[in-house]
This record gives sequence, structure tokens and C-alpha cells, in this order.
Amino acid sequence: MGSTLDPSLAPSAIGHGESGHLTRLDRWLAQRLQSMIRAARVRVELWDGWSPYREGSRIGDLVVTDRRTLVGLLLDPHMQFGESYMHGRLWIRGSLEAVIEALSQLPVAAVSWRDAIGRLFARSNTPVNARLNVHQHYDLGNDFYRLWLDPEMLYTCAYFPTPSATLDAAQIAKMDLVCRKLRLKPGDRVVEAGCGWGSLALHMARHYGVEVRAFNVSKEQLAWARERAKREGLHDKVEFIDDDYRSVSGKCDAFVSVGMLEHVGRAQFDAISEVIERVLHPDSGRGLLHFIGRDVPRPLNAWIRRRIFPGAYPPTLAEVTDDILSPAGMSVIDVENLRLHYARTLACWAARFAAARNTVRSMYSEPFARAWELYLAGSEAAFVTGGMQLFQVVFAPRESAPISWTRRDPFPVKVSVDHM
Amino acid sequence: MGSTLDPSLAPSAIGHGESGHLTRLDRWLAQRLQSMIRAARVRVELWDGWSPYREGSRIGDLVVTDRRTLVGLLLDPHMQFGESYMHGRLWIRGSLEAVIEALSQLPVAAVSWRDAIGRLFARSNTPVNARLNVHQHYDLGNDFYRLWLDPEMLYTCAYFPTPSATLDAAQIAKMDLVCRKLRLKPGDRVVEAGCGWGSLALHMARHYGVEVRAFNVSKEQLAWARERAKREGLHDKVEFIDDDYRSVSGKCDAFVSVGMLEHVGRAQFDAISEVIERVLHPDSGRGLLHFIGRDVPRPLNAWIRRRIFPGAYPPTLAEVTDDILSPAGMSVIDVENLRLHYARTLACWAARFAAARNTVRSMYSEPFARAWELYLAGSEAAFVTGGMQLFQVVFAPRESAPISWTRRDPFPVKVSVDHM
Repeated sequence: MGSTLDPSLAPSAIGHGESGHLTRLDRWLAQRLQSMIRAARVRVELWDGWSPYREGSRIGDLVVTDRRTLVGLLLDPHMQFGESYMHGRLWIRGSLEAVIEALSQLPVAAVSWRDAIGRLFARSNTPVNARLNVHQHYDLGNDFYRLWLDPEMLYTCAYFPTPSATLDAAQIAKMDLVCRKLRLKPGDRVVEAGCGWGSLALHMARHYGVEVRAFNVSKEQLAWARERAKREGLHDKVEFIDDDYRSVSGKCDAFVSVGMLEHVGRAQFDAISEVIERVLHPDSGRGLLHFIGRDVPRPLNAWIRRRIFPGAYPPTLAEVTDDILSPAGMSVIDVENLRLHYARTLACWAARFAAARNTVRSMYSEPFARAWELYLAGSEAAFVTGGMQLFQVVFAPRESAPISWTRRDPFPVKVSVDHM
Repeated sequence: MGSTLDPSLAPSAIGHGESGHLTRLDRWLAQRLQSMIRAARVRVELWDGWSPYREGSRIGDLVVTDRRTLVGLLLDPHMQFGESYMHGRLWIRGSLEAVIEALSQLPVAAVSWRDAIGRLFARSNTPVNARLNVHQHYDLGNDFYRLWLDPEMLYTCAYFPTPSATLDAAQIAKMDLVCRKLRLKPGDRVVEAGCGWGSLALHMARHYGVEVRAFNVSKEQLAWARERAKREGLHDKVEFIDDDYRSVSGKCDAFVSVGMLEHVGRAQFDAISEVIERVLHPDSGRGLLHFIGRDVPRPLNAWIRRRIFPGAYPPTLAEVTDDILSPAGMSVIDVENLRLHYARTLACWAARFAAARNTVRSMYSEPFARAWELYLAGSEAAFVTGGMQLFQVVFAPRESAPISWTRRDPFPVKVSVDHM
């Protein structure tokens, strides 16, 4: 990754502030910080190269470049780890991913570095807020995401038929997996809530002959999606709607949402439940939710919330069943945890991001590039260590016939390669 | 089914009590009963043939043979429907399954006939109670279950690779599905909680080369299982342990429980969680729970509790994840809802039961046979209509690697036919 320092890099090569010589207090604070993270075998190093770490081997170093950062890390680690890293006041020597993964595995009691990948965002996603949140993240510009996403512009967990599949193939396999789990057939009316750049909607229409109404509130994504639909002659099969998913009306045979649920916020679960109940045909209907989740309810890390995903909350399976599906009269048909697929997706993104780092830096700034690197590495660590899960949940109205007799039909996955 | 009356059967052919001529009160009570179930298109008929039903077509008739039964059905339908049917004071004209299914679909508000398949059993399954409950049901006698179960003596939901598969093949396919979901490999140490007559334990040892410790508190089932293990030369691979599953010690690579969770009672979820956390190897461990569940928390019907399954409680997925798996540090890897497979399993059992009805009656009594017929038909209806679900949940310790990259490996299911 671009920000990974060579292990041999001398402390003097790292930019640092004007904190001068170490005081006894500096050393005592560093010892406190070190004791919090010692179990991760990550060494704390202060601006003049001094370290309280006495163990032998280590995963890597946290290099703290000034006194303010040292104090910040002790007082508010959840926010200050990300802020300090982003602004170059905290450096990591060794592999960023490995260090973050080691820190992620610390027991929560020790220090909630774990929550460097995990605090409830209280701001509610009312429709107006939803627009603000999505704009902050997704309207960074298509050009930014094009630098490091796959050609289909899928910014959600891919599905790798084998661990060595390419990201491009895995994103197409993911779309196909979703279509097959939904048992799409020609003529089905599909509603997609949160369609991103529209690739799944177009894939469903092209390969499964369905009609799609796809909702999004990001104008830049929608412009891209509509342009592509027209270019590919699918604009009569797919309607891209510039509106909040809660405005959807009419009935549909399939409801799908990939990578949106974790952004709507818990306060909106009632609303999404009501939408699912209202739009899904009581006999033919079935749906799929693909979302970042957790085993145990926990808010997203404060820094991720501030810098990357305002309003986000990864729900537990129980929150989704009890607060969304059951009140909507839906039964869970099938759940698959694709956690390791997301870890691999993030590793692919990080590699592409690293390759595009100079461009990102010139488009935005060095802190921006560092923030994204930290976010990608931290997310990968969370999926590797089980701090976060990726659930695909298939559901259907309780009293309808379940949508398939066995799972075997949609497996093995057919990877469509015609536009790879 | 044996108790299904010919639709043309005259009321006089039905045994009834000594309630004599209808009073105005009888008619008024019958009208109340009829209005509660009118939406199900089931006709109420009193002992002299009179009915308040004025609609045209109908699914079938409830024939009430005396005043006491009529009053009982209005005051305590959950208990009295089963009690009256069992003792021949309530008859069903038409298909028992169809009538029960129609009654099951009534909105809960109308009358909780729905709960004729659904009230919380307060009695806690302490180890001593667990023994009592299991004895009441399972120690009816191996000879009883042998009359209508498959040759493997599996008294849990089967897995029909195709809807036309036989029950015998489907039970073997179910065992194989469980083994494949668990990714069993030679040498694995397996703990089975609630092993019934031992078929799954023996299947795992024979076909997957694993070592099994299988727990049960039913002495008659255990005697059968041990005898079979010895006869088949598997007694050095499978240890059948006459003890509560909570006594299990040591570590294992796989924990499996098929058809037990719904019998342990909600008060015991902490205990099973603690067992899973304690015995499952933190790196290699994975587990599978196969259980009757619900979408919405609701106690089991009072009559089923009294006559068929004392202590039983079918949990929701959320109860299982929040009260058992998450506290044990487990992540959900995979969930499959086999609801329709259980409906078909129950239909197969009902047909076999009907064929063995005379024997059952002579072994026990007419009310016993009627009780079982009602229970089998009611359960089938619950799985058909979505009142009950059958979940298979695969899980693994949160920080271990998930047990497989994709689902494809264990599908299609290999049905072992060597001892069918």
C-alpha cells in the first residue's frame, strides 16, 4: 500500500512536529499507550525514536510524531487514530494491513482499537440527511471511483468463485449470484433500492429479461447509469429513478438491495420494513438484502463515520430479522456470510488504490489519500478478523411458497464473461 | 389419514354425547364459533346436524358432538381443540390436513387457532425435567416409532433432493447434507447433542471417518443406538453417552445438534451457548444447529405442549443468534430454511402412520391415535403455511476462518444409497 513505510526507514525520514526532547511525562504516556496495545505486538515509537517496547518480535511500529498526537491517542483513540494517521502525525512502519489487523484483534476491554473499525452514529437518516450523507461519500466524483473500482463500478463486496478469481470476474459473479438467489425470470418486475452506478440493474435486465426500477439519490451516479443504459439499449428495461427508496410505489416480484442497508441507519429500519411489505407481491415476491453486518450490535468507528461513511450502521442478523423482515411478514429463506469475500475485495481495491495513489493525491490531497488507505486497510482487517460480516439474506412473504426446493439450482455460479 | 371422515358421512355415524335437542343458547354459541372461523371456510355442525354456516363452498366440517365441547372450544380453543379431537368429541369431515391448514391461516386476531400450532411452556428444562420431558415423548417405545419412521429412525425434518424423493432417501440425504455443511473430514472429533436413535452419529463415522461422542438422555434410544453401533462395527468410532448434552467436556472440531434445540426451552439457551463456546475448538471448530423455528416469537400451542412435546419452544433466528451464538463468540456462516421439506416429511409420516393405525390403536388407544394424527396434520399445516420454519444454521468461532470459500463444494448432494 502506498503509505506503508519500509521497515528500515529511519524515524528522521518521518515528518514530525515540534515537540522537542522527551519529558518524563512523554515517556509515561507512551508507556500507557504501549500497554494498551502490547498484546497486538505493535511497538510504540516517539518522535525522537525512543520506544517503551521491550518485547522481541513485532508486527510493526506506530510512530507518534508529536506530543499532541500522543495525548490524543490516549484520550480519544477511536477518532484520533484515524485523524492522526490521515494528517501524517501518526505513521505505521511495517504493513498497514497487518498492523491494523493486529490492533483490531485486541480485546475490546484493553482499548477499543477494535472500534477503530467499529460507534453509533446518532444522526438520523431522514430523507434530506440521506441525500447529504450519500453526497459526501459517493459524489466524490465518478472519476475518483473509476481509478480503483472494477469496470462495472461496483462498490460492494464481490463474490470470488475461487480465491484466485480476478476482481472484475468476481464482481460479475456477485451480480449473477444475486440474480440466481432471487430466481429471476423473464418479465419479473424488480425494485432495486440503492443502485449505485446501475450495473446490477443492467445485468438483471440484460441477462434475466426482467424490468427494473432502480432508486438512487446520488445524481452523479444516476447520470452515469442512465448514460450507460442508453448506450447499451437497456433504457426501456431499466428505469433509474432519482429518489429515495422510500418513495417506491406499486408491486414487484423481487426486491433487491446491495450495499445500502448499512447506510440507511437503524432509525430507518421501520421505513425499509414498510417498503418491503408494501411493494413485494404477496405470492410471487422474494427479496435479497446484501449488507455489511455484525455478530454483536456495535456502532461504527467514530473516525470512519466522520471521514468516510456518515450515517452508517452495520446491523446484526437479528436486527434485520426482528426490525425489518418479521414486521414486514417475511420469512428468512437463506443466509450466506461472505465475510472473506469482502476481505479479498478490499485487498483488491487497496492494491488498485495504491497504483493510482499519485493521481488521487493530485486530485485531492495527501491526507485524503492516507484517509482512504487507512479506511481500506481497516475494513479489510475487520472482515478478516470477524469484526464485520457480509450477509446476503434471501426472504419471501411468510405465507407464500418458498422460492426454491433446494439450493442446488443456482450453483455452481455461471460467470458471464461477455463484457469482462 | 386414518381419522379423515368421508365427506358424505352422516352425522349419525359420528359418536356423540348426551346433549339432546338444541337450545337457543347452543345455536348462539355455535354462531359465535362459526364467526371466529368463517374466513377459513370451515363449517361448524352441532350434534343434531344443525349448522350456522350459510356460505356455499367449504373446506370441511367441524362436527361438535356435545355442549361441553362447544363451550370448551369457545373458552379455551388452544387446548380444547386438541383435547376434544383426541377424545372423539370433535370430528373433522373432509381432509384433516386441509381443515387444519385452513384454520392455521386465520388471522391471529380472529381466534388463535393459529396457535393450535403455536403458547409458551413455562416449565423450565432443568436436567431433571429434561429427562422427564424426553421420556414422555421418546420413550413411548421404539416399537411405536418403528411403525412409521424410516428405517434409520430419524424423527427430524428430511431433505428431499427432489420433491418426489422417498422419505427413506430423503433422510439419508439430510444426514449427508449436515455432514457436508460441516465439512467433516477423517479424524475430526464431533460432538452430537441429542442423537436420537444414533443414525446421524453412525452415518458421520461410517462415511466421513470422524469420531463421535453422541449425547442422549433417552435410555431406550441409546440402547438401540449402541446395539446398532456394535452390530455395524462402529462402536469404537461412536460413543453413545447417557447424559445431558450440558455435561459434554473436552474440545471438538464439530458440534452438531439436529432436532434438539426446539426441545431444550428458552431458559436453557444460556447453557447451550456456554457448551458451544466451551467445546468448540477456536480455530478448527464449526457447528450446525437444525431446529424448528419461527419468524416471530410465539409459544407452542398448549395442547401440543401437553400431549406431544412438553417443554418445547421453537425459537426465532434472532433468539438463536443473540442468545446462543453471539454470546458464544460464534458467527453465522450459513442459514437454510427447509420449511417445505418438513411439510413433506410430515406428510410421509402421516401416510405411514395411517397405514399402521390399527396397530397403534391396539398398542395404545383410539384417543392416542387421534392425538398423533392431529399433531402430524397440524404440524404439516404449520410448515405449509409458514407458521413454523425449519432452520439449519452453520456457525464458526468469530475469529476463525470461515469453513469454506463458497457453498458449491457440498452441492449437489451425494445421496449414499448403500444401506437404503
